Amino acid sequence: MKFPATIYSRVVVPRGFRFAATAAGLKKGGGPDLALVEAPAGATAAAVFTSNRVVAAPLEVGREHLVRSRGRVRAVIVNSGNANCATRSGRAACEKVCREAAARLGIPAREVFPSSTGVIGVELPVKKILRALPRLGAGRSDGRRAVMGFARAIMTTDTRPKLAAARFRCGRKRALLRSASSRGQATLLGIAKGAGMIQPRLHLAGQSWHRPLAGVNTGGTPVPPHATMLVYLFTDAAASPEALARALRAACAQTFNRISVDGDTSTNDTVLLLASGASGARVASAADARRFATALAAVCRSLAWQIVADGEGVQHVVELRVEGARTESEAEQVARAIANSPLVKTAWAGADPNWGRILAAVGNAGVPVDPRRVDIFLGSQLVCRGGRAVPFNERRAHRELSQRQFPVRVRLGRGRAATTFWTCDLTADYVRVNAHYRS
Amino acid sequence: MKFPATIYSRVVVPRGFRFAATAAGLKKGGGPDLALVEAPAGATAAAVFTSNRVVAAPLEVGREHLVRSRGRVRAVIVNSGNANCATRSGRAACEKVCREAAARLGIPAREVFPSSTGVIGVELPVKKILRALPRLGAGRSDGRRAVMGFARAIMTTDTRPKLAAARFRCGRKRALLRSASSRGQATLLGIAKGAGMIQPRLHLAGQSWHRPLAGVNTGGTPVPPHATMLVYLFTDAAASPEALARALRAACAQTFNRISVDGDTSTNDTVLLLASGASGARVASAADARRFATALAAVCRSLAWQIVADGEGVQHVVELRVEGARTESEAEQVARAIANSPLVKTAWAGADPNWGRILAAVGNAGVPVDPRRVDIFLGSQLVCRGGRAVPFNERRAHRELSQRQFPVRVRLGRGRAATTFWTCDLTADYVRVNAHYRS
Repeated sequence: MKFPATIYSRVVVPRGFRFAATAAGLKKGGGPDLALVEAPAGATAAAVFTSNRVVAAPLEVGREHLVRSRGRVRAVIVNSGNANCATRSGRAACEKVCREAAARLGIPAREVFPSSTGVIGVELPVKKILRALPRLGAGRSDGRRAVMGFARAIMTTDTRPKLAAARFRCGRKRALLRSASSRGQATLLGIAKGAGMIQPRLHLAGQSWHRPLAGVNTGGTPVPPHATMLVYLFTDAAASPEALARALRAACAQTFNRISVDGDTSTNDTVLLLASGASGARVASAADARRFATALAAVCRSLAWQIVADGEGVQHVVELRVEGARTESEAEQVARAIANSPLVKTAWAGADPNWGRILAAVGNAGVPVDPRRVDIFLGSQLVCRGGRAVPFNERRAHRELSQRQFPVRVRLGRGRAATTFWTCDLTADYVRVNAHYRS
Repeated sequence: MKFPATIYSRVVVPRGFRFAATAAGLKKGGGPDLALVEAPAGATAAAVFTSNRVVAAPLEVGREHLVRSRGRVRAVIVNSGNANCATRSGRAACEKVCREAAARLGIPAREVFPSSTGVIGVELPVKKILRALPRLGAGRSDGRRAVMGFARAIMTTDTRPKLAAARFRCGRKRALLRSASSRGQATLLGIAKGAGMIQPRLHLAGQSWHRPLAGVNTGGTPVPPHATMLVYLFTDAAASPEALARALRAACAQTFNRISVDGDTSTNDTVLLLASGASGARVASAADARRFATALAAVCRSLAWQIVADGEGVQHVVELRVEGARTESEAEQVARAIANSPLVKTAWAGADPNWGRILAAVGNAGVPVDPRRVDIFLGSQLVCRGGRAVPFNERRAHRELSQRQFPVRVRLGRGRAATTFWTCDLTADYVRVNAHYRS
């Protein structure tokens, strides 16, 4: 592509957004757990949500706000430490927080987009959140420190904040001399959290939404954190909600919907894309849309990789490539079967070139594969051709599989479709993180 | 039922069978790894095999032998230490072993039923097996010690042999005074192995078999054991191969096809049912068939439970009951989603009453469940009603989940169908067993 997106390691803050974070006392360990983003008037938005049949209250409220505001969002409010899922007052609690935040910012409640992540089955401590709102509002800033504060406040079992930024060129909204926009430069910043319960299957087509759970909590047990995936994408280009939705769905299909840490899909997975238009640049032409899509995909790919790499107990990141399928969804089906096989993942934990388990997983994928046509590559070496062992350098294989990241390639010999999937090993640490009573 | 089957803890050897085991040098650690069962002339048989697309050579040979012999089996030969899967010479090697065993026993090769379990992708060391055949043949005996020797020789990662026996009444073949058969008493003995790579999905209908893999091994890597499930069922009643097949499929559907240790289905799973007729009793009437089916189901249930209880790293056995489904296969689909969720299994490892993860797994099962109709019981307590937390005694829940075995019950509120599924927790020991390089 002529204008490839560049991923910036350092934080690049898109214009028009202000970030804030504070400690509302929701997280057991303490620390920042309430975060806010403010967007300028006219900011547009699109979002996608989990396809789990069980959906937390904020996802329902957020979706309805997007519908009622016709894709306008002026503020995002996120809490960690409580998923507001399977709770009786979940819906009312979420709407109360949105109303209060809206009143303080002088915007309609329907233009506030809420998210929650943390324990499930426990009432959202609304009062704590409301008490913290003034502090939160006062802290708004467009500085890098504020952005990092936001990124940290939304973390649960994450060990580090996850950010990615890109710049892309697009047409000018109007001629503003001596401004970046006169060169049609726009900025994109993505912030994500997630470490476990990660196999996002974001609902990208249709609108088969489910009502929120009305959960009771009358002294019921607090349950360990969901390490839901939350992703927020900010650009200072201008774009219609429809254009944002198209770009977001295309990007998610190839990135967040192509990763798995443990094969469990959360009840709270959310990806929101916000466009402030503050750079003066506008995604107008088809060429603009292509460049925007490229930048968006690059940022989402980086965030998806960071989520897998920071997965609970993860030692190895695996780039799984499945080729020679009849359709891409067939390739995806085989990739998920391999990525979610405990025996494959534990072999990876041991840097063990155990292609037999991969072959068995392919045979279990529910795709009518002919094993005699299956080739398997571990790292740089072909280890199985036509379903048969072939000689390979085992020490080299063990060395390559001992790396922090390595590729695994499977050819099905059925057609021309392929997919790339990011996954990881399964370690004793994953078990420790998740088996620890009341972790 | 009027004549319930009794499970005998001690070994009860059905008449007409002789067992033997020896060390052929196939297992790395040494010890018995080659086992034989001899059945009398006229013995009938039925078998079911894995539904994995990847199928080891002995499964193909065994199935063809059953077809060519019209369900007659005079001998079963099993080796551990090598799965004879994904090997180039697999088919020829397996046939060679059957021919040699047949010659020694003076029976047609097509009446020899072969099985293998162990490393995949390594040529079967035929010479070692052939050298051991004389020893093996010489050791044949109908004594309990020989039976236990057989049960131990087929083990891989199993920590203990798995046996179950039952007696059942059925009609007399012919009047033999002063013989057990004059009371129409028949005996059933089951012997099994399996600890990991356990989610048998035995192919019970149709005949969509796949050709064996032709695997190459030219110095390719030996791969750690498959802990395939192998099950051998012996009765001294007489029954037609068709009657055996009917009873076997019905029993497997509710037992071996209702367990999961790690959700991985092996390439070598095999269940064989052999009838010697040596008791003089014959499964003739519909009532006989019912009593036989009851005994067979009881033995298979016991063996299935023993396999889960001896699963790799298993601390807790979970009796998972899914009720209120539209169809039984829908209930099974939800049960597998719960049983194979790493977050659910790790919570069980911590004796953590974490119903939120179970609810999330139900939402991911691919069944259009309405979360507001889902009830969850942990141990003896209702912990989630209508998708909401309800108050429960947490210390009691933790105490119950700390037991070696406990029940989990999920009601979907969609219909009247239900299923019972046996599974287990996921522990750091499972990871250690399977991540250990060249384990």
